[in-house]
Amino acid sequence: MKISLAQLNFHIGNFEGNVNKMVEAIIAAKADKVDIICFAELAVCGYPPRDFLEFDDFIRMAEESVHTLKEHSDGIAIIVGAPTKNPIIEGKDLFNSAYFLYNKEIKHIYHKSLLPTYDVFDEYRYFEPAETFDVIHFKGKKIALTICEDIWNIGNENPLYTICPMDEIMPQNPDFMINISASPFNYEHAEERIHVLKANVARYGLPIFYVNHVGAQTELIFDGGSAVMSPSGEVFEEFPYFKESVKSFDLDEVIAGTKNIIQQKNRIQEIHDAIILGVKDYFGKLGFKKAILGLSGGIDSAVTCALAVRALGKENVRGILMPSEFSSEHSVNDAKQLAENLGIQYDIISIKDPYKVFINLLSPYFDGRGFDVTEENIQARCRGLILMAMSNKHGNILLNTSNKSEMAVGYGTLYGDLAGGISVIGDVYKTDVFNLANYINKENEYIPINTITKPPSAELRPNQKDSDSLPDYEILDEILFLYIERQLGPKEIIMKGYDEKLVRRILRLVNINEFKRHQTAPVIRVSSKAFGMGRRMPIVGKYLS
Amino acid sequence: MKISLAQLNFHIGNFEGNVNKMVEAIIAAKADKVDIICFAELAVCGYPPRDFLEFDDFIRMAEESVHTLKEHSDGIAIIVGAPTKNPIIEGKDLFNSAYFLYNKEIKHIYHKSLLPTYDVFDEYRYFEPAETFDVIHFKGKKIALTICEDIWNIGNENPLYTICPMDEIMPQNPDFMINISASPFNYEHAEERIHVLKANVARYGLPIFYVNHVGAQTELIFDGGSAVMSPSGEVFEEFPYFKESVKSFDLDEVIAGTKNIIQQKNRIQEIHDAIILGVKDYFGKLGFKKAILGLSGGIDSAVTCALAVRALGKENVRGILMPSEFSSEHSVNDAKQLAENLGIQYDIISIKDPYKVFINLLSPYFDGRGFDVTEENIQARCRGLILMAMSNKHGNILLNTSNKSEMAVGYGTLYGDLAGGISVIGDVYKTDVFNLANYINKENEYIPINTITKPPSAELRPNQKDSDSLPDYEILDEILFLYIERQLGPKEIIMKGYDEKLVRRILRLVNINEFKRHQTAPVIRVSSKAFGMGRRMPIVGKYLS
Repeated sequence: MKISLAQLNFHIGNFEGNVNKMVEAIIAAKADKVDIICFAELAVCGYPPRDFLEFDDFIRMAEESVHTLKEHSDGIAIIVGAPTKNPIIEGKDLFNSAYFLYNKEIKHIYHKSLLPTYDVFDEYRYFEPAETFDVIHFKGKKIALTICEDIWNIGNENPLYTICPMDEIMPQNPDFMINISASPFNYEHAEERIHVLKANVARYGLPIFYVNHVGAQTELIFDGGSAVMSPSGEVFEEFPYFKESVKSFDLDEVIAGTKNIIQQKNRIQEIHDAIILGVKDYFGKLGFKKAILGLSGGIDSAVTCALAVRALGKENVRGILMPSEFSSEHSVNDAKQLAENLGIQYDIISIKDPYKVFINLLSPYFDGRGFDVTEENIQARCRGLILMAMSNKHGNILLNTSNKSEMAVGYGTLYGDLAGGISVIGDVYKTDVFNLANYINKENEYIPINTITKPPSAELRPNQKDSDSLPDYEILDEILFLYIERQLGPKEIIMKGYDEKLVRRILRLVNINEFKRHQTAPVIRVSSKAFGMGRRMPIVGKYLS
Repeated sequence: MKISLAQLNFHIGNFEGNVNKMVEAIIAAKADKVDIICFAELAVCGYPPRDFLEFDDFIRMAEESVHTLKEHSDGIAIIVGAPTKNPIIEGKDLFNSAYFLYNKEIKHIYHKSLLPTYDVFDEYRYFEPAETFDVIHFKGKKIALTICEDIWNIGNENPLYTICPMDEIMPQNPDFMINISASPFNYEHAEERIHVLKANVARYGLPIFYVNHVGAQTELIFDGGSAVMSPSGEVFEEFPYFKESVKSFDLDEVIAGTKNIIQQKNRIQEIHDAIILGVKDYFGKLGFKKAILGLSGGIDSAVTCALAVRALGKENVRGILMPSEFSSEHSVNDAKQLAENLGIQYDIISIKDPYKVFINLLSPYFDGRGFDVTEENIQARCRGLILMAMSNKHGNILLNTSNKSEMAVGYGTLYGDLAGGISVIGDVYKTDVFNLANYINKENEYIPINTITKPPSAELRPNQKDSDSLPDYEILDEILFLYIERQLGPKEIIMKGYDEKLVRRILRLVNINEFKRHQTAPVIRVSSKAFGMGRRMPIVGKYLS
């Protein structure tokens, strides 16, 4: 029996595009004499469809898409994810389902049982969990078909669910497992995924065919990494990351074992590749080509720019240098050098005049109060205004260049440097921004060395340095990581040896700046806890603040 | 037996403040010889605590708060909501619980079974549903204690859950029901609440003591409306809306029936009162007093300003008039008149100079393209910059003045008129903004009549009117309501008699402008479907767009 896994890049709500892409893969699979072709979870509508699922009209379009696919199932079985209506009045209105289509008929519909509802996932918002578990009989084999999370309740220390679907299916003696997934990337996730697949093989002793999405959906990056496991517990083949790939496998060969094609894992490289895919798909799926961003001469805008060039091409990225009276000579030079190294169009538009006009206009209303954060913000907002004007006039999207460390502590100006359509490195701590810069430079000095080595500064007042108001980034990032990714409280962080006053100050800064993050662009997610849809915090709360 | 319901305004994460408020009520109740005092769902930590619940440190503080309350339970039973840890490793780590404290002991802990996970609710993100149901024995009575949603699975056409906790408890023959809730306001909700309470009495024939939160938590407004139901099915007493209230009831009197204190319901008045509470608590809970906003002479800023004055006092609201070359004479006059009618400080700061500077600065980079939305946005962003500068310098919060109709179709400038810390009327359609204006004016002409009667205009180009680019607000708002609140698709809306081309255009505008709403202030929620946490839409999606 020949089984094909189609790791494809779908577009949320673009039923026609998604179906066409699948039909193409089905036609190729037929020519390849494939018996079963598998598409990912909710493939017909893309993942995550979010509240589109609440529209009957949207569900109808999903059903019509399945019917189109069904017409192509002559002589080949198609497994495809789609939402289906729950016929029982009690409970949620939908199931998260996998269709088994064959010879132009719906042979079976399996419903997902374990519905991830944490971090970026909201599945119980929409779906009723399944409570029946049946194998699928096909050409003399019994298939245990599951959906994503269904196989994730084993092998972990803190199981989130009280049942385990595969334990329910096993009494029916399946021959192999197929799991269709929508499992988004973070730099710790690929290892967890292999760990979970191995834990399943160890427990059930069956081969596994696992197919995942690839591609970006605003914040979420799907890295692919579809995999086939031999019953011996070895990885038979792991699909490439961050690109589409369709491969077919002979069941007997998989059962026999070995082959062992495994992707190399490197944290910074994965983050780099994930962000590039994130930018590329954000633009592509919105129907835009061109990006604009401010270049300060600093490392954040430099790294953002280099990644954007790799995602969109140098002809589609434009840099704007906006020096002020507080900008140092090297800032402009470093930014120019970057633009020239990358080969992108750039312009220099000084903010001195508008800044002066605003200061003159507003000073009568400032009650004689001296230079403070107001004046700093006016500079940042003049830049934001210029960038948005260029974006509006030329139809390109502004890239936000804030890093995770500064977004965490609120070291940025709302509607100023926090502006932009998509936050490119907003889930990358400053220390990793340096790592990314070095990775980008590994063959050529795209990012000027001076940009990497000089002390970070916002240059919003004379001789300002980040270190005037923030601790060293090494310390700051460690504390932020423990608080944000590891969700430790102040006592637990202090017990690890950090200064109490510093810890309390940083945690307070994170919490009181929630209002800023609420109004910033979606952040391309690369960590296990990014700002945005996966981290939902009260704004008027008074915890640690 | 005397039962007291304490409808109080809690603050998320402010354990000390919340506990102090409850202790005060307990002391008063003891003096009043109350047997049981009831506080709302998750009262110790406030509702919704959102991802604060994922911090062990936060849960520990909740536990400590319960222990403090327990020390005050000598001679009085206390029912209070708090998160508790789930001792079973499988399943979520927490329960949403109600403690029954008496004589300095924890006598019972009841866990919530039905966990709302839709619209603004995310409870299954955090909590494991309970599967055991016991009555509480107290002074010879048996109490059926439930939490909010637990009693909402009856009396509705489309039950969301497959079980009904009260059906499980009834075999134990309880004498009366207590339900502690965190049920946020929308203008349709108070009627539903009474409907559900009546459905429970009809089914179980028991008196009900229902206590709710009051107060605003960023977007969510809790209106109170706690209630006591007689077993005959009549409302014995409905608590006031939008204010704290503690009342005690004799069980026998409730069983005997009548009294019949019911709050009058008036949609526009409720919206008016809800927004005022929303603004008041947003400022109060963040520790701010003063607001600033732009006054255009139009109805949106006028209504926002009038509501802010009622929430914060006229001495705490400052209006900024920012005319441009496109502003009409009447705009400035109407805005001045409004400020004078309301007795607030106002300043006139023209944007002509900064606008001219930006146009001169940027025109070399505009490739000879003519006046378009870019120049309109520059004006709006000059205003946003001025308002934020005033906000920064004087420590007041900028109020956003956008209405729901324009937020829906993207008729607003990101970082310009869409700026602000809190969106005051962002859940009020334009047609209801007019209704609010008339309601505000019912005794005095606070809002100048000319502001209400003149045709709406953004005044960002010569002789511009909203009706140049949008249909009449009556039609627009109806279509938006069907799409947003009622979640109908294009076909269903067109079938109601609206022009197909118009419907498709409007739905497309709503969907392609998701990126703007993603970056706007939290919206005070008054409808059953507000923009923000209760409406989660993809940005790169391609549905109807």
